[in-house]
Formats: sequence, structure tokens, C-alpha cells
Amino acid sequence: MKHEVKILDCTIRDGGLCNNWDFSVEFVRDLYEGLNAAGVEYMEIGYKNSPKLLKGSDAGPWRFLDEKFLREVIPNKKNTKLSALVDIGRVDENDILPRSESMLDLIRVACYIKDLDKALELVNKFHSMGYETSLNIMALSHVMEHELMAAFAEIEASPVDVVYIVDSYGSMHSKDIGVLVEKFKTNLPNKMLGVHMHNNMQLAFANTLMGVEKGAVFLDSSVYGMGRAAGNCNTELLVGNLKNTRYELRPVLGVIEKHMIKIREKTEWGYIIPYMVAGVLNEHPRVAMALRDSDEKDNFTEFYDRLTTVEPAMK
Amino acid sequence: MKHEVKILDCTIRDGGLCNNWDFSVEFVRDLYEGLNAAGVEYMEIGYKNSPKLLKGSDAGPWRFLDEKFLREVIPNKKNTKLSALVDIGRVDENDILPRSESMLDLIRVACYIKDLDKALELVNKFHSMGYETSLNIMALSHVMEHELMAAFAEIEASPVDVVYIVDSYGSMHSKDIGVLVEKFKTNLPNKMLGVHMHNNMQLAFANTLMGVEKGAVFLDSSVYGMGRAAGNCNTELLVGNLKNTRYELRPVLGVIEKHMIKIREKTEWGYIIPYMVAGVLNEHPRVAMALRDSDEKDNFTEFYDRLTTVEPAMK
Repeated sequence: MKHEVKILDCTIRDGGLCNNWDFSVEFVRDLYEGLNAAGVEYMEIGYKNSPKLLKGSDAGPWRFLDEKFLREVIPNKKNTKLSALVDIGRVDENDILPRSESMLDLIRVACYIKDLDKALELVNKFHSMGYETSLNIMALSHVMEHELMAAFAEIEASPVDVVYIVDSYGSMHSKDIGVLVEKFKTNLPNKMLGVHMHNNMQLAFANTLMGVEKGAVFLDSSVYGMGRAAGNCNTELLVGNLKNTRYELRPVLGVIEKHMIKIREKTEWGYIIPYMVAGVLNEHPRVAMALRDSDEKDNFTEFYDRLTTVEPAMK
Repeated sequence: MKHEVKILDCTIRDGGLCNNWDFSVEFVRDLYEGLNAAGVEYMEIGYKNSPKLLKGSDAGPWRFLDEKFLREVIPNKKNTKLSALVDIGRVDENDILPRSESMLDLIRVACYIKDLDKALELVNKFHSMGYETSLNIMALSHVMEHELMAAFAEIEASPVDVVYIVDSYGSMHSKDIGVLVEKFKTNLPNKMLGVHMHNNMQLAFANTLMGVEKGAVFLDSSVYGMGRAAGNCNTELLVGNLKNTRYELRPVLGVIEKHMIKIREKTEWGYIIPYMVAGVLNEHPRVAMALRDSDEKDNFTEFYDRLTTVEPAMK
């Protein structure tokens, strides 16, 4: 490997999208200890959204992180840093302490390209409070070239530390990732790059390796791949395969053995045919997620026909 | 895509290693029809080993293919050609009819590099009987460079049509496959190349795409990935993703919907932690397969310790 990479494990944050953040404190603690022992640099411990701005108060505390609670969960913070994600329009900036008083090190802002200005406003705010910041541009496979080129100038002028390439629909091949990382590198020479891949076509790990090869520094992953729909690049594959690093596979295997097998029995994610179909068709997984929640969950051909039949008006 | 590829579905042959070839005639028929409708070029319908030379007479008929039985199973052969695999020392050449009288089009010979001479003898024999032939060199990640270079000269001089790169241990990254395919292309300029990948690290599909990019023509896969241990590249991913071809995804989804979900409930294969560990460590999956057959099947850390502890004498 030509450069240092950093793994950011987002099991709690992205995995919570599968089980409504129903994670026990014991699990989150064990995960933190396991990731720290494995040498993983960051753990994304949830969303820092505001319960005032977003329904879902039945969700676990990891959707609305609270500093006091975080201190109870992780009384002894070690090498692994903590991050939280915020969504545009769902975060109340007044909820956020200056970094010097916070358990969090990194705040990541997720946005669609149309909300770039709002996202950069948040980045500026968090940066001025002392946080490391990242900008996670979602649904890149639906962004047109001229929109992206216009965005680069604004992003490069901002104080953001890391810019993420997010394959929200799990529709990209490694070649696509290679081209995108090269393009981002050329146009954002002063930013670190990150990749957040989805596993609809079993390409999350391969695409992340392509990201590394082309110069991405931040690699998102989750233990046993737990994440929305098809899930993410598997943390255990990264720590087991990245060479010349301090990573240790064994502690991640310990977390899978103790917790993830049981969690996977109750909650579904991963390579599942309707998610694969959505990836092949470059579509949001929401229709496939609805199918998996219904009695029709294994009616793959009917689902395929539904997604591929062009409505008369659209012809 | 720069060149025509051919998909060879080996669900029955490689998948049979998971369930002792316990496939119904109805399933094999539906699979043939589905693959034919999907545009898949070859279906590997089993092993052409001899029951006289190999124990396992309790295995389904797909392990010891018989021409008369094959004619009953597939009374109307369509575009999809049929292939069978033979193992060195397990095939009785007298069992094999000339191609003009056979249901089979392609006979593939699997061998370790040490058995190359025996393999080429079989290739010569089958070639003289009119069959298309392939040589599938297993365990390439354990072959040393000078052995491989010596083998190339013999192989190039033989009448074999296709030479396969087989990642038996599922331990290779796409980069490795790229390097190997380039090397085979340079040293075997008159042979078609094939790739047979295993999915221990969720790289079977990505590695197969790399094979295509570098010029491989024959792509092995199985429906829903069914194959020994971690399984193979998924047929549905190939037909869903390869561009500029006649491939159709829907018929393969039909086979998965009707059969594979049920088969997977009874029989295990795929991305399972001990197979991942074996892949990371570049080892044969047999120890992991034994673990999965035991009461300790989810004791991942103990398994990892066992495989990574160096015996004093080996230090």
C-alpha cells in the first residue's frame, strides 16, 4: 500500500438503519473495544440528529446521540476515535458541544448534491467548533458531470477534511470507482478522499480496494457487513487483507462470534436478490426493502418485471 | 467489453460438492431451461468420474454421469452446451463415448500442476474423440513461478482449447488475477483463457470481471453462488452485468426463486467466517468445512488461533 489508510467502522450508524438502532449498550461497548484492539481508527457511533427535527423517538439512543449518554457507554476512550453522521435539515447545531467538551472527534455531513450549500454551511460550523469534518456526497451514480464539476470548486474552497464517494445504490463496478477517485483527486487536490460502498452486487470490498489503490484514505465498513439493505464493505475483510498495517483480524472475529451471528438471525441485510436487482438497475433500494418486508419477499421475477416494465407515458 | 465471453454455469458440478449431488431431475431440467433462456453458453452437468475408481456410490447421478440418463434428463438439447469435469485418476476413458454419440460437448480436466502430464494425456484422448477440452489448473496460489513457466510450454504444445486459472482457495485479489491472466496470455498466445473463482473474501465476481477485462473468455459461475465452501461467482451477477451481450437476467431469477432459496435452507455455502479466514490465510477450505460440520461451527476466534499458531517445530 502506497499510503496510510483509515478504517471507519459504521456498524452502529448504518447497521442501525436495519434494526431501528436496537443495539444494547453491551454490544456497543464490545464493538468499541474490539475495533480498538483491531486497530480500526474510527467508530461511527450513530447519528447526531435532533429528536425535535426528526420523528422516530422509538429508535434507540444511537440515532440521537447525547454526550452524557456517550460518556456512560464509553467511560475509557482509547485510540479509536468516534464519529457521528448528521443529515441536512435534521440536525440542531445548538445540540452540539465544542469538540473540546465532546466525546466525538469527527462529524460527517451526508448530502445529495443539490444540498451542497447547506452541507458546507454545516461543515463550516463544525470545523469552527474544532471537529474533523467530512462531506459524504450520496447517490453519485445519479449525478451529472457538470453538477459534479461545479461542486468541486465549492468543496475545495471549504475547510472540509475528507470528501466521500458514496455508492448509495450499490450499482458501481470497480472501474467506475477507479474513475471517480481519480477525478476527485484531480479536482480536490487538498482534500483526503473516502469511499463508502454498498454490497448489492458483492462488490463493496473489491470497490473499496480499488479506492485504496487509487488513493482513497478513509474506508467505510461495518462488521459482518451490517448496513442498510445489502449492507457495506465488511470490516473483517479490510482488517484481514490490508497489508503493512497494524490491523488485527482476531478482535473483529470475536465481535462477530459473540454478537453478529445472533443479530443477523433477527435482522436481515446482505446479498439478497431484490437488492442485487436494484443495484443492477442503479435504483434506490427502498422498493426492494418494501418487498422484503412483505409476504412477496421471494417473488423475484415479479419484482424484476415491475422494475423493468416501462410505463407507457415514459416511453 | 472488448471480446466475446462465454459463461459456464457449474451449479450442478461444483454445487454438488455441498449436497453430495442430491439434485432432483426436475431441478436440473429447470436449470438447463433457465440457463438456455438466459443465454448462458455452457452448463456443467456433473462429473464424468467412474464409480469403479471413486467411492461415493451414494452420491446422486450427477457425480457419475451416464449418457443414457442424460438423454432422459434433457430430451431436447437447445443452445446451451453441456460439459463435464473429470479428475485425474478417477475417470475411466472407456466410459466415454465419441462426441458424435454423446450429450456432452466439452470435457474439462482438473489437475494440480504436479499432475500436468497425466492431465494432458487425458486432454489428448478427449480431443481425439472430438470434444472441446479445457485444462483447469487448481491451487494456482500455491504454484511457484518456475513450475508454472515449465508448464506453459507443454500446455501451449497440446491441443487443449481453454486453460483455466482456478483460485481454489479464494485467496486472490483482483490485482493477482489481473497479473495471472496477463501472464497466461503472454505464455499461451494460442489458447483461450478461463477463470474459476471462489468467494471466500466476496471477490469471486470482482475477480471474474478483472478476468474479462484482461481477456479471459470462459467465465465459471453458479446460480446463487452455489459451490463448495464459500461458493463461486454468481451466475446472476454475470448475466445481470455483462454488457453488449444477449444475456437475460430474468430466467436466472426464476431458477433462484423456484429452487435455490429452498436448497440454501438445507445446504450451506457462501460467505461464512471460517471460509473467509481460510481465504485470508491462503489455505484449503477443508479445515473450515470440518469446523462447519461440527458443534464448534461458530467458534471463530478459536479456529483462527488454531490456524495461525505456528507449531514449535515449524518456527
